[in-house]
Amino acid sequence: MNIEGKNPVKEALDSNIAISKICISKTAHDMQSIVDIARKKNIRVDFVDKAYLDRISESKRHQGVIALSKDFEYCSLDDILEYAKSKGEKLFLIILDGIEDPHNLGSIIRVAECVGAHGIVIPSRRSVGVNATVLRTSAGAVNHMRIASVVNINDTIRALKDDFVNVYCADMNGDCLYDSHLKEDTAIVIGSEGFGVKQLTAKLCTGVLSIPQFGKVNSLNASVACGIICYEVARQRLK
Amino acid sequence: MNIEGKNPVKEALDSNIAISKICISKTAHDMQSIVDIARKKNIRVDFVDKAYLDRISESKRHQGVIALSKDFEYCSLDDILEYAKSKGEKLFLIILDGIEDPHNLGSIIRVAECVGAHGIVIPSRRSVGVNATVLRTSAGAVNHMRIASVVNINDTIRALKDDFVNVYCADMNGDCLYDSHLKEDTAIVIGSEGFGVKQLTAKLCTGVLSIPQFGKVNSLNASVACGIICYEVARQRLK
Repeated sequence: MNIEGKNPVKEALDSNIAISKICISKTAHDMQSIVDIARKKNIRVDFVDKAYLDRISESKRHQGVIALSKDFEYCSLDDILEYAKSKGEKLFLIILDGIEDPHNLGSIIRVAECVGAHGIVIPSRRSVGVNATVLRTSAGAVNHMRIASVVNINDTIRALKDDFVNVYCADMNGDCLYDSHLKEDTAIVIGSEGFGVKQLTAKLCTGVLSIPQFGKVNSLNASVACGIICYEVARQRLK
Repeated sequence: MNIEGKNPVKEALDSNIAISKICISKTAHDMQSIVDIARKKNIRVDFVDKAYLDRISESKRHQGVIALSKDFEYCSLDDILEYAKSKGEKLFLIILDGIEDPHNLGSIIRVAECVGAHGIVIPSRRSVGVNATVLRTSAGAVNHMRIASVVNINDTIRALKDDFVNVYCADMNGDCLYDSHLKEDTAIVIGSEGFGVKQLTAKLCTGVLSIPQFGKVNSLNASVACGIICYEVARQRLK
């Protein structure tokens, strides 16, 4: 996987991501700090033609530097549950049911990191995974977030409910978000940008939460909706 | 101003935006409903080569249809204050201090429309205005939102405070959002993506509100932060 652009590469160098080498454009400026950290960490630095970076760039916004790393390492659902237990906190999990836009996934990872969620679950198919654009949009948050990739979201919800986790999905025509009780072990299901939460998935959930809508168009971006719901979890747990 | 893409054009036809004509690609499909509504409203429809649309398109994502409309009509701050009064509601205003990314502006307009804010204030310079990308990203919400473009944000804040409006800006190191009282006439100031709220602007405000952060990176996208704060206003007013 590529990590592209000055700040994402610096973030990656600060984190525990395994970087195999860093390619820097011969004509790029302000790369000394990246070179210094890389040398300190014994990471190979190649100075290359800008055209080469243009060719290998996935995001097409490399700013003269690309770090080559191993693929993002997903964890398992159990890892996330264990992590919550190890912190002595009630579970706070975000389940994404088919987010397709990497910018939305990146932005949701930022929300998850800020709000103190223990992890994110995404389906392995029909969903964007952690790629270079997600890495870039997440502003480094991805390096601090446990993300599990599962074959079947519905099976995951069933397993969580067997484990006494309350699983709420976000959708229209549910109960008002502000009448909910989210202090116990909780998972929040966010549907895809185009179609929302699937009907079968919604039926499996403990309940449906709705963000009150006061307008005519009433359409919130998926990452904004996720932010509003997750911060209601945080608000209730702070009180 | 161009309105580009099937849904944005349909949204514009449903609203009161003045459309001078609609250009549809000769090779586009599924345009009958747009043609029907346009004919009913006596709006001229031209069938043109796709290459022509490609040339006049601003967003480069026209999906075979572009409506040409007059420029977006900004309102005045007084229009927004009057509107709140006419609804018999406490003022709920969003002030954007230098948002530069049109996707963020579009997403914030969606938030404002959903949450029932009375209007948005943006500065006339050093900020993105309502352009084709904003229109597209706002998913039609812009047609239902009062937006004022002002020369000086700080003068606007002073005027609002003279009018007994509480003006809060969003920033780190402020009071916890959930300890705030937002039921009275309220304006929320959101800073630019890169630099947040300017120091002088923050000093002018009634108070500074912080979204609690539980992570290491702690950076929320501007539109997500706006959504979380605006929905706290809505939550307090619902109770």
